[in-house]
This record gives sequence, C-alpha cells and structure tokens, in this order.
Amino acid sequence: MKTELLDPFIKATISVLTTMCQTEVTAGTPRTKEDLTTWGNVTGIIGIASDTITGSMAISFDNASILTIVSKMFMEEFTEVNNEVIDAVGEITNIITGTAKRELSEMGLKCNMSTPLMLVGKGVLVNQHTKAPILQVPFEIAAGKFVIEITFTEQNIS
Amino acid sequence: MKTELLDPFIKATISVLTTMCQTEVTAGTPRTKEDLTTWGNVTGIIGIASDTITGSMAISFDNASILTIVSKMFMEEFTEVNNEVIDAVGEITNIITGTAKRELSEMGLKCNMSTPLMLVGKGVLVNQHTKAPILQVPFEIAAGKFVIEITFTEQNIS
Repeated sequence: MKTELLDPFIKATISVLTTMCQTEVTAGTPRTKEDLTTWGNVTGIIGIASDTITGSMAISFDNASILTIVSKMFMEEFTEVNNEVIDAVGEITNIITGTAKRELSEMGLKCNMSTPLMLVGKGVLVNQHTKAPILQVPFEIAAGKFVIEITFTEQNIS
Repeated sequence: MKTELLDPFIKATISVLTTMCQTEVTAGTPRTKEDLTTWGNVTGIIGIASDTITGSMAISFDNASILTIVSKMFMEEFTEVNNEVIDAVGEITNIITGTAKRELSEMGLKCNMSTPLMLVGKGVLVNQHTKAPILQVPFEIAAGKFVIEITFTEQNIS
C-alpha cells in the first residue's frame, strides 16, 4: 500500500472529530494490524473503490471515546452504545471518508465510498479478502482511544 | 431502490455458481430483509460505489451449501468452514459482483466494488448506515441454501 494514501485519512479523522466534538485528537504511529478482529467496541467499516484501487477504511472506538464523542455531537449525554450511537458511528465513518475523498481527488485519485457497515463488539472476526497489509493508526482523546484501519490494493481495470 | 438493479446480481449469482460448481441454482422470490443479522454461517459483503449510487451486496451461505460449492470449486472435499472456505467466499463475492458490474455498465451504471469482507457465524449483527431497504433473494442448490442481499441508495455527488 502506498503510505501517502494514509495521510488524507489521518488528517480527515483529526479535522472531523476536532470540529464536530471540540475535542483534542492526537494520532499515534501507524502500525500493521496483526489480527483480524475488531479493535474496539463499535466499528464502522466503509468500502473504497475506484477504477484503479480497491480497499476499505474502518474506525473502531472504545466505549469511553465513542460515548464522549456522540454526547458532544448531540449535546446530550449517552451512557451506553445504543442504536443512536451505532448510527452516529456510521455517520462519522461517512464524513471522515468524504473528507479524505476530497483530498485524494486533489492528489489525482478519484474514488467513491460504499455504504458504511457498523459492527458492535470487541474482537469480532472480520476477514478481508486481500493480501495487502492493513495499516492501523491509533488515536487518543482525553476520554478514550480509537483506531482507524486502512487497506488498499491496486487492481487491474476490468 | 430500483428493483431493476437487482436482476444483474441474480443473473450473475446463477451464472457464476452454475459455471464454477456445475450445480443447478434456483432463485426464489425477492423479499425485504427484516432483521440486521447474517442469514447464514459464512457471509461475504462487498461495497458498491459509483458517482450516483452507494450500496452493498452480501452473499450468505448455510454450511451445507458452501461446503458443497467449495468442494466442487477445488475438487477436494471440505467438511468444515476453515480459512480456505472463508477465503473462497470472498472470491465468490468478487466474481459475482464483477459479473454484475459488467451488466450494470451495459445498463449505463458504471460502478466499482470495494474489498470483500467475510463474516463467520449465523446471526452476527451487521448494521448498515442506510435508510434504504435491503432486498434479500433466496437461492437453493441440491445440497443447501444461501441468500444474496442488496441495498442501493442514490446519492448526491459531492
């Protein structure tokens, strides 16, 4: 995977969550994901597709981080991962990839995103049909932690 | 969802599995999916994205159908859902959507597909971030059953 494709997602994650939630967001060092299970308690996954690449982005939150983020988004306190929180994870996934998509487009890579899926539960096995590595970037806010996970494969045009 | 978009996936499913596995495949009547959980024991999910629509296709097999299909694909008997079977579900998902993509393109809808995800287990909760209905089509082969599930949303170009 071209690591320069990672930057637009890192920047979009910081920018979207800082703006939406008035939360300071810091990114850690990217690493290769070593297993195939969901990192956090709620995970949004979105497919990325263009004529030349195929891939996905996932964002996976621990309970503390997502409850804080959604409470700030809706200016209302959320204390459990309910349907509204799950749906907000889908919306956050959409907004981050939409933001990254604009930057990728400026880099000359025009791609589209599919409908986000949201999985609930830590350690849910999610196999990806790719031999490409999955890069994981850890993030931290005062309340908790989350990660984004990106994989891209260049494909032949069919 | 435009139901005419369903036909290319039904035809591709029948054509790909009949050809790959020398199995007679019959399709039942499409219905609206009523819950958010995986129908079968192994499920492949792939994102579909174009400038004008966003969506996903899932194909979900009971154990009997997928073990028969993969045994015929590899001309070797599989008796349990192992990594090879899970990976074959990803490949089947890719080939079916690739086939449907060509027909959609002939209908004037140029779209791309993301990397397939494969989920193992019946009844795994998969939330989709869409208000569009999910259409489910049941299929039968002599050995067992499977379904495909499709959802599409028209989107504004951003």
